[in-house]
Amino acid sequence: MDIKRNGSQPSGKASAERFTGPVRVDALFDSPAPARASGASVTFEPGARTAWHSHPLGQTLIITAGCGRVQRWDGPIEELRPGDVVWIPPGEKHWHGAAPTTAMTHIAIVEKLDGKSADWMEQVSDEQYQG
Amino acid sequence: MDIKRNGSQPSGKASAERFTGPVRVDALFDSPAPARASGASVTFEPGARTAWHSHPLGQTLIITAGCGRVQRWDGPIEELRPGDVVWIPPGEKHWHGAAPTTAMTHIAIVEKLDGKSADWMEQVSDEQYQG
Repeated sequence: MDIKRNGSQPSGKASAERFTGPVRVDALFDSPAPARASGASVTFEPGARTAWHSHPLGQTLIITAGCGRVQRWDGPIEELRPGDVVWIPPGEKHWHGAAPTTAMTHIAIVEKLDGKSADWMEQVSDEQYQG
Repeated sequence: MDIKRNGSQPSGKASAERFTGPVRVDALFDSPAPARASGASVTFEPGARTAWHSHPLGQTLIITAGCGRVQRWDGPIEELRPGDVVWIPPGEKHWHGAAPTTAMTHIAIVEKLDGKSADWMEQVSDEQYQG
C-alpha cells in the first residue's frame, strides 16, 4: 500500500505545445503495470484549453470546480459544470478547457495502451474556441 | 462522446454483506471495453467501512472529504484526509472507511480483470476497526 499525502506532489504546468493558456496539472496517481490507469487534476484558467487530441483507450473527465467546455470534432461545444462526467471514446478527436471567463478544474483519467495515453494534434484556434 | 450530467445518476447504497454501517455509492463512470477502468464516489458515515477485500488489478482512492481510515492486512491503521491518494496493489487484502466519529468520502477507481474488480472476504470486526 502506498499513500501519497496531500501536499507531497508538486503542481506542474501543462505544455504550451499541447495547451493554450495557463493550465496547472496536479498529478494524482499513475498505476503500475499490470494496471494501466492514471489520473490528474487539471485546472484551466479562463479561456485556457487543450489542443485537439485523442486517446487510444478513451478518457473520463470528472468536473470538480468552475465552468468548462468540451467539443468533439464536428460536434457542438458543450458546457460542463461540477459533477458532470464526460466519456471520450477511443480515437475521438476533441478538446476540453475552461469557459471564456470562468476557470474549470477536472479530474482526467486515462488508460495507457503500449505506454501511450494520448495523441496530440493542432491547437484549438480562437475561432474554434468561440464557436 | 457521452456526458453524464450531475443529478442524472441516482445514488445507491452499498451492500450490507460487503460493508459495515451506512455507505452511499454515487456511480461516476464505467468505461466500456477495451477500456476497463471504473470509478465511484463512496461516502462512509462515521464508523462505516468496507469488509476486508482485494482487487485483481489494484485500486486507487482519492480522498475528497472528511476523515477516514485504511489498513492492509497485518499493517497499521492509517488516517486519511482530503487530497490524500492511496494505491492498493493487486491482491493486497485491506479495508477502508470513515473515522469513528467523522464521515469520509473518496473516489474509488478500479480496473476489471476478466470482468471482475474485487474479491470480497470477511467483515472488519469492531475490534479490528478500533485497532
